[in-house]
Order: sequence, then structure tokens, then C-alpha cells
Amino acid sequence: MEREILAANQAFYDAFVHEDADAMDALWARRAPVACVHPGWSALLGRDQVMASWRAIMAGGAPPIRASRPRVHQVGDVAYVVCDERIDDGRLVATNVFVREDNAWRLIHHHASEVSALAAPENDDDDVPTAPPRSILN
Amino acid sequence: MEREILAANQAFYDAFVHEDADAMDALWARRAPVACVHPGWSALLGRDQVMASWRAIMAGGAPPIRASRPRVHQVGDVAYVVCDERIDDGRLVATNVFVREDNAWRLIHHHASEVSALAAPENDDDDVPTAPPRSILN
Repeated sequence: MEREILAANQAFYDAFVHEDADAMDALWARRAPVACVHPGWSALLGRDQVMASWRAIMAGGAPPIRASRPRVHQVGDVAYVVCDERIDDGRLVATNVFVREDNAWRLIHHHASEVSALAAPENDDDDVPTAPPRSILN
Repeated sequence: MEREILAANQAFYDAFVHEDADAMDALWARRAPVACVHPGWSALLGRDQVMASWRAIMAGGAPPIRASRPRVHQVGDVAYVVCDERIDDGRLVATNVFVREDNAWRLIHHHASEVSALAAPENDDDDVPTAPPRSILN
């Protein structure tokens, strides 16, 4: 099951970088309620707003985004994936929430945000400090 | 059910502003896998890392955070709440994911991020543009 969730997560990034609006649309849930938070943006709610945002972004040319280190957390028919994103030299982190719908894992929520330069250097062993810089929270 | 989820969401912010580490600990899932993305920070994974981060933040004094406009999206025993956050003049947006565990709604994931000053002005009718500024994504 984790493999299927990882495949759905990768399909999302593939659709994005290939600017494939139809593939992107097919990846989002039909019945479950969807939402999306693009980096630096407030929340978009509902399928119409969310899909319009993806079409607008991809129409302007998708950024060269690369996802890495996807970590799957499954709770029954819902799963969330936390993964790192890179756009050029920018570091981001994403939460992608999936629901099992019509025998497929479909997105219900995407929340991506920039990782501050004040944060710990990227590493592969998750050995990061446990508190964010106070300057970010204040 | 939505009322219970909203109450759990508010309890999370109450625990935070009151710097109540025990209440915060009780609000997070015991068995389901947890993760957390603080603003500007990369992902913290697992209960130990996540709870250590909250203890460290609260030990330093919680920021004057206020949550508003929580919107509940429920899928069976999992729900996610998208809400606005304010810290002084800073605008943030949060995704809080809950699981129903031991007859209570408990947090499995919190992802908060700053809303850029380039984003649309805050409003109450969700009438926001559907595409983020390109400058944020590039």
C-alpha cells in the first residue's frame, strides 16, 4: 500500500513539472473535500479554486520542482506524505494528504512552504534540532 | 462531529498559548504516526521529535498566536482543519490533521507557514485570486 501512495505522490509532481492539467485534475479527489496551500499563499478551498490555481500556475510554466525523501504516514483510507521539495536553490517542505477513493489514492490537500535559510542544513538522517529559530515564530 | 473536531483544533491553540506542555502532549495521537512542520522549518517526524519541539518552543514563551476561520474537512476517522493564524502582525496558515483515536480527535500533523505580504489581502469571503504570485514559486 505504501508503494501505491508513493506512486500517487510522485504522479502529482510528474503532472506538475510536465504541466499536464488533465493528469493533475485526475489526481485530485472527486468526492472528498479538497484544499491547497501554495507557498506563501493563504488557503484555497474546494475543487474549483484548487484546480484553477494549478491550471494558472502550469499555464505560466511550472517551476523546475523536484521532490525527495517522501515519508508516508497511513491511517486507514487516508494517508499523508511529508516530502522535501527543491525549486532551483530554494528548499521547501510539503504535506500531501491522500484519500483512497474509487480504488485509487487521490489528493485531498497539498500544503507547501519554504524552509527558511535559518533552518538547519539539509541532511539525510533527520538529525535536526527540535526547535525552530525563535525569529521565525516572532 | 464537526463540533468535536473544531474543539480539538481550538484545544491545540489553547494549549500552545497557555504553554501547557501536558495538555499539548495529550492532544497528539498515541499510536498513529505524527509529524510537524513549524513555520520556516523542515519536517519533524515522530512523536519524540514533535513533542520535544513543542516543549522547546513553549519553554521559550509561546508567541501570541490567534487562530481563526477554521474549516473542517472530514474523511471518516481522519479530518484536516485549515485555519488562519495571526502572530502579532504576521499572517500564517495552518493545516492540522486529526485522527479519531480512543474516542477522541487527536493531532497527527501540524503544518504552519507564513502568508507572504504579496498574497491577497485577508478577507472573509474566500474571494481570493486562484494563483499565487509567480515570485513566490520561483
